[in-house]
Amino acid sequence: MFKYPQSILNLIDSFALLPGVGKKTAERYAFYVLNEMKQEEVEEFVKNLESVKNDVRHCSVCGNLAEDDLCPICQDTSRDHSIVMVVEQERDVLSMEKLDEYKGLYHVLNGAITFSKGISPQDLNIDSLIERVKKGDIKEVILATNATLEGETTARYIKELLVNFPDVRVSRIAYGLPVGQDLIYADQMTLLKALEGRREYK
Amino acid sequence: MFKYPQSILNLIDSFALLPGVGKKTAERYAFYVLNEMKQEEVEEFVKNLESVKNDVRHCSVCGNLAEDDLCPICQDTSRDHSIVMVVEQERDVLSMEKLDEYKGLYHVLNGAITFSKGISPQDLNIDSLIERVKKGDIKEVILATNATLEGETTARYIKELLVNFPDVRVSRIAYGLPVGQDLIYADQMTLLKALEGRREYK
Repeated sequence: MFKYPQSILNLIDSFALLPGVGKKTAERYAFYVLNEMKQEEVEEFVKNLESVKNDVRHCSVCGNLAEDDLCPICQDTSRDHSIVMVVEQERDVLSMEKLDEYKGLYHVLNGAITFSKGISPQDLNIDSLIERVKKGDIKEVILATNATLEGETTARYIKELLVNFPDVRVSRIAYGLPVGQDLIYADQMTLLKALEGRREYK
Repeated sequence: MFKYPQSILNLIDSFALLPGVGKKTAERYAFYVLNEMKQEEVEEFVKNLESVKNDVRHCSVCGNLAEDDLCPICQDTSRDHSIVMVVEQERDVLSMEKLDEYKGLYHVLNGAITFSKGISPQDLNIDSLIERVKKGDIKEVILATNATLEGETTARYIKELLVNFPDVRVSRIAYGLPVGQDLIYADQMTLLKALEGRREYK
């Protein structure tokens, strides 16, 4: 039976790795590359894929995306270095920054505790958070993990570790979001309310 | 304000070129590449993109996908070379071949006449179809463009050109599909009915 040339089948497989992309969608993307994309656009695409994988670094302090050793936020001396907001993903940092309201620093966990997927605390940037707190300059840790079971489990876990530091205020971002909603999909007003309504985490 | 590193912004732009991919989805794909894809998978992806753009050829007779000068279907001497089915896209060939019912050849137009997008008959592989018919070996042309305004316009246009060849039977695939439906999304039974019910195109 007639089949597509192998290189198209291969490209369909690559696109199908992306989240939420099934066979039909992957096929549509592959044919778009073949028939509609200009040569320069494909070359750009290739360059950008390689560059993201090779050039993007993570801030050695907070784990946020960086082009240098420190991310622009950790480098910014005008920000309040005594407050650290703990988020699950790098994308959450941008969502929060768009508010232009929060002036402290961040700590990116790179996920949340998810027993069903075997993601345990050791797989997350939790140790490095505790190291930061140990240095003694941090007055408040805001737990801004998602309002999901995993996010809540992670917040609870970190809270337990931080009882050893009684001088550090530990707060949890307010439940302004519907439970089950990921932070990155929240609208700005909801995010703002959630930030304002943060409360002591006991 | 904090922004993503430039290489991520660039990759988001590349993904956003794909059909039906908005900013949020492109961002999701880019972060998946950054955080979840293995180095080898990204290298594969890059290789496949380049290969599709550089190695895939079109059959010099019918315009279908090919790895040689002729596609496997045009090379197949067991098929009926006196019948040509005219389709809009390469993907339509695969949909039809999956039926394992049609044993003639194809002609891929590479689109349909779409005035709103400035796609005129000159932009499609229509001249090469007429050249094929002129050679005198073709007894039937089956017009299997989509059941859309554009597909119907294209079928009508080709029909008019073929009145100059009174010995060639011109048929139109039957309307088994709901009007407005693209051929590639049709289920096999609908496709089969449409093929069986083809009628003289007057």
